[in-house]
Amino acid sequence: MTTIRDVSKLAGVSVATVSRLLNQSGYVSKEAEIAIMAAVQKLNYKPNNIARSLAGKKTAAVALMVPDILNPFFPEIARAAEDAAAAEGYTLVLCNTDNSPVKEKQYIETLINKQIDGIIISSYTIQPEQIIALQDRSIPVVAIDKPFPNYPIVTITAANRHGGELAVSHLQAAGCSKIAHISGPTHVHASRERTIAYEEICKELPWFTPTLIGYGNFTVAGGYQAMKDIYKKHPDVDGVFAGNDLMAAGALKALIELGVKVPEQVKVIGFDGVRMDMVYPEITTISQQIYSFGETAMNYLIRLINNEPVERKNYEFDVELLHKGTT
Amino acid sequence: MTTIRDVSKLAGVSVATVSRLLNQSGYVSKEAEIAIMAAVQKLNYKPNNIARSLAGKKTAAVALMVPDILNPFFPEIARAAEDAAAAEGYTLVLCNTDNSPVKEKQYIETLINKQIDGIIISSYTIQPEQIIALQDRSIPVVAIDKPFPNYPIVTITAANRHGGELAVSHLQAAGCSKIAHISGPTHVHASRERTIAYEEICKELPWFTPTLIGYGNFTVAGGYQAMKDIYKKHPDVDGVFAGNDLMAAGALKALIELGVKVPEQVKVIGFDGVRMDMVYPEITTISQQIYSFGETAMNYLIRLINNEPVERKNYEFDVELLHKGTT
Repeated sequence: MTTIRDVSKLAGVSVATVSRLLNQSGYVSKEAEIAIMAAVQKLNYKPNNIARSLAGKKTAAVALMVPDILNPFFPEIARAAEDAAAAEGYTLVLCNTDNSPVKEKQYIETLINKQIDGIIISSYTIQPEQIIALQDRSIPVVAIDKPFPNYPIVTITAANRHGGELAVSHLQAAGCSKIAHISGPTHVHASRERTIAYEEICKELPWFTPTLIGYGNFTVAGGYQAMKDIYKKHPDVDGVFAGNDLMAAGALKALIELGVKVPEQVKVIGFDGVRMDMVYPEITTISQQIYSFGETAMNYLIRLINNEPVERKNYEFDVELLHKGTT
Repeated sequence: MTTIRDVSKLAGVSVATVSRLLNQSGYVSKEAEIAIMAAVQKLNYKPNNIARSLAGKKTAAVALMVPDILNPFFPEIARAAEDAAAAEGYTLVLCNTDNSPVKEKQYIETLINKQIDGIIISSYTIQPEQIIALQDRSIPVVAIDKPFPNYPIVTITAANRHGGELAVSHLQAAGCSKIAHISGPTHVHASRERTIAYEEICKELPWFTPTLIGYGNFTVAGGYQAMKDIYKKHPDVDGVFAGNDLMAAGALKALIELGVKVPEQVKVIGFDGVRMDMVYPEITTISQQIYSFGETAMNYLIRLINNEPVERKNYEFDVELLHKGTT
């Protein structure tokens, strides 16, 4: 196994210099940097736990900041991120921020104090300047679910717009001729993109009217209430695109309670692809392939930590239709 | 705010001595210990993050080892544990062990190397000797879901036996006269206790026969299959006690698919009280009050870390009937 000593020998510099560069913990001349990076590449050197200890770092830990692990989207992200982190010798610190800017700031301070190696952030409220500030302190960040165009930040988002189009097209292809939409929070990027996709397709169609759009706040109870309201106004609705799976499940509950047959009378499609095999009939959805999504985010973060080349831009993750029992 | 210096002054010993005692990191005379603990109590001193740094500790981190965060029981445990840890200045490290003894050993080694302050362990496979070994290295542990009688270990379990009795009694009181049981894995303590409760009540009743018991491995798919098998043998069954909520949801799916009306023809009750408001009708269950459970576990762990008195025994957590739509 290649060690930091091998790198130091081949590069013709001290172990301390290699360590300073890899941990970004002090000055290294441009000349030394080039020699070290060439040696790292030639030897295919990956700083592992032991090498990191040799290099003087006490911890090998990365953090995952999520709004709330109780939202069923995030346990799968956490599982994937932890698996990918553990495979590289990192432990995963979990932070629930409730999308509170105050909590986010506190966590960021704490994580800096603990010399965290990198952070994956999922947040509706975080500002790009906060991420830049972390990067300036040599703490790599990968942001998920929200792009920051024009900032040198690695972000990963799902193809939300395209997924929304897929959802509506699927309902149309299944014969729906009056399609309602239950939107998540409009200040959430992913939610807004899905709603825009619906609007762009439907607003020119003869049956469209704005009261076909309800708001369900990404929750089961919200989806349930929105569906009841929409059905009251539009008992001839025959398709529903919900902005996430929880709202789709709420809509399904409302329809069953109203005695409406799903999928015979009304077809329902969700978004996310969270594990909901407890629901009957199982919900057709646009799947984000959440596990791969979380795994990819952690792999990018580890590449950043290892100073491997990663272009700082948004990476859009593909989505796919999962055809189940509600359409 | 009280600091470690105040404690040192009042106790008449050096800061280093206080630190050694509170971090269990070296010898402290009995005399000094008594003086320090008296000062701690008098000043109501709680070692916080800053004081801990003063005392020479680099990290303030606790770990939560769970089989799999994707099991919906654990996100709520993780959320509660993280909230309680953050309130005391600790970050939470999440470890998914898949109940693999190999992975568990690796995580424990890693956590020791990282000088973790304490660990909450939920595991079907962990041996009490492993926990004792951690405690001997001054790493406090709280084990959940499995008691270790005769070992000086703090464990927290739900009142599984009592909960199983509650579940069966509830079905009886609702008029059920032939009650099936879907059991979880028999090597899991909590699961076994629930099954024993069913057997003890039902085995002497005239309608009882062993084929009324199915096995669902704590999963939706397992509960679904077990229900189909039981119903084939016993189409006159009118009550089902499932050993957890996921299996109850699977049983509900199977019954709906078979055209059986729930709760009119067959009543279903689960166990755990995980968030499953996406299921219709919502499932009656024996709730473990999971959030309080996780919070209590973390509070015990922090008391152990702070050297506050905690009796090393099993603490049984109360359960309660949550009456919903399936009974």
